[in-house]
Amino acid sequence: MTRYQHLANLLAERIEQGLYRQGEKLPSVRALSQEHGVSISTVQQAYQTLETQQLITPQPRSGYFIAPRKAQPPVPAMTRPVQRPVDITQWDQVLDLMSARGDKSITAFGGGSPDVTQPSLKPLWREMTRAVQHSSTDIFSYDTLPGRRELREQIARLMLDAQTVVTSEDIVITNGCHAALSIALLAVCVPGDIVAVESPCYYGTMQLLRGFGIKTIEIPTDPQTGISIEALELALEQWPIKGVILVPNCNNPLGFIMPDARKRQVLALAQRYDIAIFEDDIYGELANDYPRPRTIQSWDIDGRVLLCSSFTKTVAPGLRVGWIVPGRYYDRVLHMKYATSATNVPVTQLAVAAFIREGHYHRHVRRMRQIYHSNMETYTCWIRQYFPCDICVTRPQGGYMLWVELPEIVDMVCVAKQLCELKIQVAPGSLFSASGKYRNCLRINCALPTTETHRCVMEKLGAAIYKAME
Amino acid sequence: MTRYQHLANLLAERIEQGLYRQGEKLPSVRALSQEHGVSISTVQQAYQTLETQQLITPQPRSGYFIAPRKAQPPVPAMTRPVQRPVDITQWDQVLDLMSARGDKSITAFGGGSPDVTQPSLKPLWREMTRAVQHSSTDIFSYDTLPGRRELREQIARLMLDAQTVVTSEDIVITNGCHAALSIALLAVCVPGDIVAVESPCYYGTMQLLRGFGIKTIEIPTDPQTGISIEALELALEQWPIKGVILVPNCNNPLGFIMPDARKRQVLALAQRYDIAIFEDDIYGELANDYPRPRTIQSWDIDGRVLLCSSFTKTVAPGLRVGWIVPGRYYDRVLHMKYATSATNVPVTQLAVAAFIREGHYHRHVRRMRQIYHSNMETYTCWIRQYFPCDICVTRPQGGYMLWVELPEIVDMVCVAKQLCELKIQVAPGSLFSASGKYRNCLRINCALPTTETHRCVMEKLGAAIYKAME
Repeated sequence: MTRYQHLANLLAERIEQGLYRQGEKLPSVRALSQEHGVSISTVQQAYQTLETQQLITPQPRSGYFIAPRKAQPPVPAMTRPVQRPVDITQWDQVLDLMSARGDKSITAFGGGSPDVTQPSLKPLWREMTRAVQHSSTDIFSYDTLPGRRELREQIARLMLDAQTVVTSEDIVITNGCHAALSIALLAVCVPGDIVAVESPCYYGTMQLLRGFGIKTIEIPTDPQTGISIEALELALEQWPIKGVILVPNCNNPLGFIMPDARKRQVLALAQRYDIAIFEDDIYGELANDYPRPRTIQSWDIDGRVLLCSSFTKTVAPGLRVGWIVPGRYYDRVLHMKYATSATNVPVTQLAVAAFIREGHYHRHVRRMRQIYHSNMETYTCWIRQYFPCDICVTRPQGGYMLWVELPEIVDMVCVAKQLCELKIQVAPGSLFSASGKYRNCLRINCALPTTETHRCVMEKLGAAIYKAME
Repeated sequence: MTRYQHLANLLAERIEQGLYRQGEKLPSVRALSQEHGVSISTVQQAYQTLETQQLITPQPRSGYFIAPRKAQPPVPAMTRPVQRPVDITQWDQVLDLMSARGDKSITAFGGGSPDVTQPSLKPLWREMTRAVQHSSTDIFSYDTLPGRRELREQIARLMLDAQTVVTSEDIVITNGCHAALSIALLAVCVPGDIVAVESPCYYGTMQLLRGFGIKTIEIPTDPQTGISIEALELALEQWPIKGVILVPNCNNPLGFIMPDARKRQVLALAQRYDIAIFEDDIYGELANDYPRPRTIQSWDIDGRVLLCSSFTKTVAPGLRVGWIVPGRYYDRVLHMKYATSATNVPVTQLAVAAFIREGHYHRHVRRMRQIYHSNMETYTCWIRQYFPCDICVTRPQGGYMLWVELPEIVDMVCVAKQLCELKIQVAPGSLFSASGKYRNCLRINCALPTTETHRCVMEKLGAAIYKAME
């Protein structure tokens, strides 16, 4: 973290804690510079950051003052989906959302892309060029079925941070986390099976279930603590559920980290009802706080957790490097990897293995964690300013997604269509439900840098929502 | 083709045609040099090639003579598999075969890797480095769901050679041909369905069917003209078959190219019984003769052919760039691509698109076609010399695979195990049958250069087979 970011965070915390009252004057740039032993320009940059976040306002020739603020919007309540197995709809809507990917004129707040413009990614280019130049036979040949060993070794080392103790032999490399989850599901389920999910649930996961003819049951989920253990148990009693898909760390779209006690409870439940847990840890490394949270897999004693992850959110989606720790399903997973894609691209595997080995990965992730945290605070400020009052907004503990619940009257599916014409893309909440619920919600991708352009887009988004309420 | 290769082929043809008798002296190097207007060293190289192929023998201070030869082994007869739907076995054996991939001490005659050591591949490194350096945002971002447009456009152009007229909009990029076939099958079939295959059938295809719980019925196949139309019709009358997987061009493992009339017959049959055709064209560009053969898809009028292919055999397996032309199944294929892998690696797509656009692809494939053709002739000579007399060997019209049928008494599964200890890997025929038939057959990968080392390996292989007959 740079000095000014550090200082800005410190001041933001003090403001949130109420150490300064609304309208109160902040210390002068010179005073703060002396107090913290930093340069004048560092303080100025920190104040500008806080101004962007609308925590402070400048007054000409008087200095900075604590900005008048709307109240912090509350966190959404526990969700209440229909609790019976259903077929999944919304595929056409997801296709529409994805079709924007190629078009650079569109501001894509609806997708899940991370920020790949940071200079801390530069060593990855170098490692990729090096792999092309020095390992040309390797990169042109077939990979082994489980994936490059040097990469699996690095992943095993990384996972120790999540108290997840595995060896390279326990890991199977996949074409991203999506493919990992796909292979995990194919290894355990057949068409017609029922799989439980958190509600709301990432649309990609649901469309994957739909593709394989698997039904889903959506379980009530708390935006701060995760899936309702009670509701899950009720569902397990009532229906022949094969497994549950969970994103317990930095949930997409809700941003929560399940408390450890609840992770253990859900594992105990899975053991009692003999079901599999598909644990999606793709955002786990992007928790606001370090050390990162544990995986459910880290408590697993009978190999029923299939842990899926990738470098898509932490490094770059274009690498298409994910992995799966399949536990007792290892053999079946290996066969399903063979059946779906056989082997993966060696060059991106070699590049990311070197990126980790040389220490670039940790530097990059540390940086991105802070950027995303700070981005989410700024976007929350903008939402507070530009959106109606009676809304709920999540307070993510990691990742880079915000989930906004608007008044029932707002139909985000319609709003999203109107915004399309302004080349603004948002993800209406209905994509995150099997049956198109949550039409009054939306997910915002805060990986997009907090530029003036994006502030304007949020302003337009707010205006469109106000209009929808008329 | 270089001059000496051209001359060697010309002389080999004359010898095959019987223009020279066994023991007859060939023209002197000088005479041939004058006759053909080529240099002395070109003639010497041509004679050395023929010597390697054991068509001629040198006699000190006398020149070259036509070598005494065993008769050309006959082509195997039409296969006779069990003609009812069966579950597929042999997965463990396929796993064993693949586990050799990482081990560079093993001579892998059993796998399907092409030769990736040729200098005509060098421009591909350059294009990959260029993609990394000039398109870093693109290569780090998510690809679009159907794959990079610039690549699809190049593929559409290439396919015109096969009289296959499609646009970039008709093509979906996949993670290799294996993934293409996988997605095609998932788009059409559900577990428990029956799919017909040629017999013998590439083991990868069968293990893919096994993974998805699909049964197979193996159809008698002629090593020169392909699947028996009559036997396929009989099967279609008897069983509720969903589709047929065909490798009509440079078949793996038999090497035939289905005559056009038979391609049209099998398409008419598919129309009559309303089944899908999964056409695997992965070796199609490697036909011995140019222009390359047509695809079945090129006659398709109602979109029932799902044409699958890739750059794995023509360029390099490590690219993992394949494609599918799914006809009427386009929407379903797009969803199944999303369900299995979502998107592909952009960097290899960009590199191969540039490789084609700049003309390197055509140069490379022209070269490889000749190398593989010449390799297969040399390997056939070695087989004739080192293997028992009463064998049958295919005469491939393209690709780089030879299929050898040995006396019934030889159990290649046992022989293959013994050869393992010598670090030699071969593919016993049983892998190419759902039920482990063809134990007396083997497939040889002639993409391995015709070096002295590989000649020795073939000699050892022959010795092991002789020993198995004792």
